[in-house]
Amino acid sequence: MPITGDMLIGAASHHGRDGDIRAIDPATGEALDPVFGGGGPAEVERACALAEAAFDAFRETGLEQRAAFLETVAQNILDIGDELITRAMAESGLPRPRLEGERARTVGQLRLFAQVVREGSWLDARIDPALPQRAPLPRSDLRQRHIPLGPVAVFGASNFPLAFSVAGGDTASAFAAGCPVVVKSHSAHPGTSELVGRAIQAAVASCGLPEGVFSLLFGTGNPIGTALVADPRIKAVGFTGSRRGGLALMEVAAKRPEPIPVYAEMSSINPVFLMPAALAARAEALGKAFVASLTMGAGQFCTNPGILLGVDGPDLDRFVATAVEALGGSAALTMLTPGIHAAYDSGVAALAGSTAVATLARGLACSGPNQAQAALFATTAEQFLADAALQEEVFGAASLLIRCPDVATMRKVAERLEGQLTATLQMDAADAAAVAGLVPVLERKAGRLLANGWPTGVEVCHAMVHGGPFPATSDSRTTSVGTLAIRRFLRPVCYQDLPAELLPEALRDGNPLGIWRRVDGALGRE
Amino acid sequence: MPITGDMLIGAASHHGRDGDIRAIDPATGEALDPVFGGGGPAEVERACALAEAAFDAFRETGLEQRAAFLETVAQNILDIGDELITRAMAESGLPRPRLEGERARTVGQLRLFAQVVREGSWLDARIDPALPQRAPLPRSDLRQRHIPLGPVAVFGASNFPLAFSVAGGDTASAFAAGCPVVVKSHSAHPGTSELVGRAIQAAVASCGLPEGVFSLLFGTGNPIGTALVADPRIKAVGFTGSRRGGLALMEVAAKRPEPIPVYAEMSSINPVFLMPAALAARAEALGKAFVASLTMGAGQFCTNPGILLGVDGPDLDRFVATAVEALGGSAALTMLTPGIHAAYDSGVAALAGSTAVATLARGLACSGPNQAQAALFATTAEQFLADAALQEEVFGAASLLIRCPDVATMRKVAERLEGQLTATLQMDAADAAAVAGLVPVLERKAGRLLANGWPTGVEVCHAMVHGGPFPATSDSRTTSVGTLAIRRFLRPVCYQDLPAELLPEALRDGNPLGIWRRVDGALGRE
Repeated sequence: MPITGDMLIGAASHHGRDGDIRAIDPATGEALDPVFGGGGPAEVERACALAEAAFDAFRETGLEQRAAFLETVAQNILDIGDELITRAMAESGLPRPRLEGERARTVGQLRLFAQVVREGSWLDARIDPALPQRAPLPRSDLRQRHIPLGPVAVFGASNFPLAFSVAGGDTASAFAAGCPVVVKSHSAHPGTSELVGRAIQAAVASCGLPEGVFSLLFGTGNPIGTALVADPRIKAVGFTGSRRGGLALMEVAAKRPEPIPVYAEMSSINPVFLMPAALAARAEALGKAFVASLTMGAGQFCTNPGILLGVDGPDLDRFVATAVEALGGSAALTMLTPGIHAAYDSGVAALAGSTAVATLARGLACSGPNQAQAALFATTAEQFLADAALQEEVFGAASLLIRCPDVATMRKVAERLEGQLTATLQMDAADAAAVAGLVPVLERKAGRLLANGWPTGVEVCHAMVHGGPFPATSDSRTTSVGTLAIRRFLRPVCYQDLPAELLPEALRDGNPLGIWRRVDGALGRE
Repeated sequence: MPITGDMLIGAASHHGRDGDIRAIDPATGEALDPVFGGGGPAEVERACALAEAAFDAFRETGLEQRAAFLETVAQNILDIGDELITRAMAESGLPRPRLEGERARTVGQLRLFAQVVREGSWLDARIDPALPQRAPLPRSDLRQRHIPLGPVAVFGASNFPLAFSVAGGDTASAFAAGCPVVVKSHSAHPGTSELVGRAIQAAVASCGLPEGVFSLLFGTGNPIGTALVADPRIKAVGFTGSRRGGLALMEVAAKRPEPIPVYAEMSSINPVFLMPAALAARAEALGKAFVASLTMGAGQFCTNPGILLGVDGPDLDRFVATAVEALGGSAALTMLTPGIHAAYDSGVAALAGSTAVATLARGLACSGPNQAQAALFATTAEQFLADAALQEEVFGAASLLIRCPDVATMRKVAERLEGQLTATLQMDAADAAAVAGLVPVLERKAGRLLANGWPTGVEVCHAMVHGGPFPATSDSRTTSVGTLAIRRFLRPVCYQDLPAELLPEALRDGNPLGIWRRVDGALGRE
């Protein structure tokens, strides 16, 4: 399948004329063929018009048809074969095993949402039967289901060219909910985007769905994304990226004549709490495991452990000594884009230049373009609490150790943290009492609490929360990974005394879909 | 129980010094005793500090304790006795039966949320057990529950001094979720607010909860409400009122360093579709029933039928003739406040003065202050589509008939409507095909679709949706009436490999709470 550089607007291919985009191989710095044509207002208009036209039909597809569509997308992605992996490697600098794993995750995610669609609980079907004899007033027949919000704009992320991009979690959950999707591709991996986009486009056609269910746009700057979010036919936005980018989209969405929800996953420094008994028992093992988590994928994960907290003393010193040694021997790794690499270098330079911060270790020197040296810094709780800038995320393999005089101070620092995707506890049995005091704070601060693991590695399952209070995300009520994500794109509708033949299948007497429903408040399958 | 004019801040009573507030009896125009002292930044600060301090303890109350608290509030409200009804009558101009019904609704709502809390499904507990043998990577133990967002600011509504006010739906659902509540009382009914506030305050004390679970503030203007929404300890807002008021709070919330959700229920004109066969069969009965719905409670309902659509012709003329006669004989009714009355008169005058609008009927003349004459206007579909101002809500007993040339035009007008709380279909069997074409449009436009009833009258139950797309509300993903409302104040948290003794009860092995949980995606009570 040749990569053409075309946008996909409904069933059509279209070469944009609003600026050229070329992917850059970050490992060599060289531009890759072909040239992608950026879109403008005309393409946003067409994609949104088609999405709107497709909405009513797509949202009323049966559960089985919707599930089969998701599974067809998954199979079509696999059928691209190795070209997808080699192109993604060239566009991202990420190694083959990582991208093969990411493809498996992407496909698995689509298949999991197919199961969710079939199971039907997402409809949250409720029936309160009529009570014609009730005094003083009879009760009407009232039934409720959830319907999708409408066309969704999805912005591909730089750091997961498959799993958080064109057919990533946002697209999968929006499709599952019944929303058409207009993707604005990330300009770092347009070829990967086109390949995956064509897999979706083919699935739309082979499943007999209206073409507007999916479009893929390219664009050279912010205007196309702004136009997409501002379009009145778009009813929700999914975004994974920088805090600045997320805030900009939130502002556009809030200023529309009709404001819409924005699900932006933005900025998290993912604190790791090194509890005293755990440090005493295994400081060296923790130091090594920490560096492995920090440097994995050049640290380019939303859940990268960006700060560590521990009580000052010999055990913390042992942890530091091991971490310094491991990090000092860690190879420089190619980052995703020249821009991300430059931002990393400047963030690290700012920390290194701060009088409140000591540099503990740097990784091995770089041997090619866009490579990053890992970095470990240290500060004190006092200094951290005095300088809000030390909470700013440095995207990449950099972390800041906060030396605390005692566990109470660790809690005090926790209270002052901004919202996070994750909070990690390295703990032993003897730490339980101290941890019990920390847990309520961390629940208020983070979407996921984990013990004796590392935050990188986000399982796609039912219980996952990849979300958290601002600025980790723009909306802590949801998650962008896991099956709960379908709820982001739904809203409830109530039907009062509607004639039986006009009721949606999910709410008909006899439960023809066989789904879980709440009748007079009681959950059952009748 | 004497009404003191004091604010309730935690367990304390406090007379504010930032301006005086007096209720006005709209039926006489006279000011009522006592004088209420308005609060300022100092009172916002104390109420929010107490709410924050109470949050961790309140949110971890057991299901039974939380439910008992809601039931105690309900009983305490009943125990106020007739003083509550007479004071609410004096402050609102609403008649006794209406307020007795509203009290029953308020108490029933609190008790229903107690049942919801006990049942426990709102926790949305999920467990994905560890898979240590899974290849290529093992799976951690992952568990999810929902926790409350934090302290909630609730703004009392003018038109339901009990059911949408101090202990109304927003407060009940926030308490049910585990959120402390700071209420800003509506200045039209401060005495009613104090009585209900003391009922809650007493319940907090007798249930052994931290005092900050509830505070009640008075204030003379917008500053106190703005300060409350801007306070960093407030994590969500519930509001029922005007579009301008809701938009102002949305703006304050969006501009905070940490933006928070605002649930504002604002503006809806609740279209009624008079389908041809229904009109042919019972134009006169529909005309009478419409006027009864329009004029009930002086039309001061969010779900008041503000526009009607029908196909021009003799059947519609019969409907109009009956409605004109019924409305022409309808008594002028006292409105809630002088301000609301003035806004009604000016909205009606604007319609009456529009060249696009004909006045069909006015109600009987007024015989006292703050009384409103009902009004029925007519326009054509063409004129309605040409003038967006005709969609503006006139709060009160005014409605606009849109004469359409055919059913296709009714659908076209429906497509151009803003978001609504309700959409009503007056239909017979022969209308089914035409209605089937309308339903997808109305689902996109409204939170509740009803057939052969009237939108006024909102059942408090599991299947109710009192919500809808903007500007009906600021967030179509939720409802402000019915048990689903609890979800507005919750967010998911995931626990990964947390030691058993640190897990919340809802997620422990053996399901000690006996609640519905999703294990590996399958719903059950194990």
